[in-house]
Amino acid sequence: MAASKHRRNKVGEHPLPVAGIELAAAAAQLRDKDREDLALIALPAQAVVATVLTQNQFAAAPVQVTRKHLAQGAPRYLLINSAYANAGLGEKGINDALQCCAELAALTSVPVEAVLPFSTGIIGQPLPMDKLVACLPQLVQTLSPQAWLAAAQAMMTTDTVPKWESESLACRGQTITITGIAKGAGMICPNLATMLAFIATDLCVDQQTLQGLLKTECDASFNAISVDGDTSTNDAVVLIASGASICTWDQLDRNEKEQFQAALQRVFSSLSRAIVRDAEGGKHTIQIDVDAASDTRCAETLARILAHSPLIKTAMSAGDPNWGRVLAAIGRAPFKLDTNQLRIYFGEVLVFEKGAVHPNYREEDGVRALSGHEIYLRVSLGSGSASARVLTSDLTTEYVEINANYRS
Amino acid sequence: MAASKHRRNKVGEHPLPVAGIELAAAAAQLRDKDREDLALIALPAQAVVATVLTQNQFAAAPVQVTRKHLAQGAPRYLLINSAYANAGLGEKGINDALQCCAELAALTSVPVEAVLPFSTGIIGQPLPMDKLVACLPQLVQTLSPQAWLAAAQAMMTTDTVPKWESESLACRGQTITITGIAKGAGMICPNLATMLAFIATDLCVDQQTLQGLLKTECDASFNAISVDGDTSTNDAVVLIASGASICTWDQLDRNEKEQFQAALQRVFSSLSRAIVRDAEGGKHTIQIDVDAASDTRCAETLARILAHSPLIKTAMSAGDPNWGRVLAAIGRAPFKLDTNQLRIYFGEVLVFEKGAVHPNYREEDGVRALSGHEIYLRVSLGSGSASARVLTSDLTTEYVEINANYRS
Repeated sequence: MAASKHRRNKVGEHPLPVAGIELAAAAAQLRDKDREDLALIALPAQAVVATVLTQNQFAAAPVQVTRKHLAQGAPRYLLINSAYANAGLGEKGINDALQCCAELAALTSVPVEAVLPFSTGIIGQPLPMDKLVACLPQLVQTLSPQAWLAAAQAMMTTDTVPKWESESLACRGQTITITGIAKGAGMICPNLATMLAFIATDLCVDQQTLQGLLKTECDASFNAISVDGDTSTNDAVVLIASGASICTWDQLDRNEKEQFQAALQRVFSSLSRAIVRDAEGGKHTIQIDVDAASDTRCAETLARILAHSPLIKTAMSAGDPNWGRVLAAIGRAPFKLDTNQLRIYFGEVLVFEKGAVHPNYREEDGVRALSGHEIYLRVSLGSGSASARVLTSDLTTEYVEINANYRS
Repeated sequence: MAASKHRRNKVGEHPLPVAGIELAAAAAQLRDKDREDLALIALPAQAVVATVLTQNQFAAAPVQVTRKHLAQGAPRYLLINSAYANAGLGEKGINDALQCCAELAALTSVPVEAVLPFSTGIIGQPLPMDKLVACLPQLVQTLSPQAWLAAAQAMMTTDTVPKWESESLACRGQTITITGIAKGAGMICPNLATMLAFIATDLCVDQQTLQGLLKTECDASFNAISVDGDTSTNDAVVLIASGASICTWDQLDRNEKEQFQAALQRVFSSLSRAIVRDAEGGKHTIQIDVDAASDTRCAETLARILAHSPLIKTAMSAGDPNWGRVLAAIGRAPFKLDTNQLRIYFGEVLVFEKGAVHPNYREEDGVRALSGHEIYLRVSLGSGSASARVLTSDLTTEYVEINANYRS
């Protein structure tokens, strides 16, 4: 992997297949529209799986079942439906999720605990079990290594585009591939709509290492657009090592491991950015950096305060360099600020320092700094060297319209 | 006060004068519109003042000066301007606020520290000092006990109506009056626009008692729409005892004290509800009650999580009984829930219990429960007897429009 090659797959291209992984998508007519709404991911027997599941105390039935099944055995199938979240339904929800698993297990001759269910959609309405179960044979029969994009499309709810990313690396004469798909179009927490992501590689990785890699990458990507414990009922991120390659993690030297991690990071980062970019009604992506903080926790806390401020998000939607709102939000920090050391930047433009608006700051510079689709807001605390980054999107009238009318 | 009489002043009526207190309002042309934007409240020498000021670390210059002046002597004048917040301007802001006080002090022959300045409006643009100072003589010359409503109007920024409330009580052959005015049209924190409130009574109350009364009433009113430490740069609530009555707090028996406090509570509650009702773009007032909690802190925390959820607020704006969003928000509680004991109500309609949507719940009942202008959302945790209430408003496209265009 010393001569690692990195290939990006974009418009007009397709996700790279991952050796050992097959997928399928089908239209089970779960919603009125005639489009794919059910996906299946099949793993080989030697595959290893790591997960990050929602901490929400009303975790949906499929999340509860996935958690239970993970504890019981090796996963072979991931079954994903959109349109219905299967949450808030008590015992019935659990039974429905279990029945889906049982039906698929019977079709594929695996133990029921080898099936992990995932759902996203409306909370509180039962899964249309007949339609869903009737579609399972078709899914099993059409499994293919090529169906990553179809599976990404089947997971979509308010998403406007399917989200995927692939990376490949040359490794000791082999090619290692990483491909991921995701759904999610909510804004940053506490508004986060369900986020699902499935990322697979053919590298052989043991479960403990894989879980560690997943945790690290989630913290820097999906957890920087959402937050631990501040999740929807159905959120899940799954990292799969198919084990199909003859390359194993343990064989890699330090440099090769770093290169694999860097590629993994690019996939996670790309998927999480795609979710923010597709935020409901969002027109701008806002990257918030807090640096020169005394510790990481302070930096993260403040970055999230700014990312959650509707007043800032509405100003950004209008390209208004309203630094007063930024100042007011910073002033709410639950830790002591050194107000004379603190600096605020819009992009590269220094707006505020030494307790006052910068004497050279001109409104038109601020307007120009906010004129692009990607907006950069930086707060430098001047009290240390820790930093944090959070991505969010602006707050638009379209966001309100989408969410006021979601069920109608 | 045993035979207390309570008179409400509503549409077509006017705030009741409070003996000893005089007010004035004037158009200093601080903004382009020709309307009142400057107010003055004059207190007699024996008056006593209690305050709750913003905890924001970028407290505006007038807040800093008010804090300093309060420590130095007895307040005689409260000077309030709208249009400019005088915040984020460093030393210049402080100097401007001090100069306002000095000019007014010179005109009225009081020490400079007897003047308390208050501002609300745009952050980061300097006060138009010439216009403001030029208007001070007119203010002083037109002081009148009748000008409460005019003062309330002068404080308005994005407010659509002036906010005031009066109460009067018979007390030992005397009439005790309480009148308050407020401004604020922001939504609940962290969106809170500046909130200013000035409430006066002619009852003689010592400073320590007055501060205790203010703290108690703020916690149940303004702090239930905003939150300690989660404030704008300029927030201030001032309670004034003019001392003009021959009745004193110390003379009152327990029953009379309770009746006075009840009247004070009605004034605070009315003013805080008026702010929520006037929320920018808000169409509905949402009262969120969390009860049967193990302790008050848990109840408050959860009530605020619900009040801050844009997904709930947008659903309410459309009258959509989307209890799934409520469930998802509750599930984010940072304390352990007993998910089987928890109940969710829309108004009187039981929606969710024992971990699932209630079998008798019908969507049309939920729609009906949310059809009024005032929406009641109740979450009963089933784990104790503590409770909390928070008022908020819905999230509408108008809110986004108002806040995206506030400066243009």
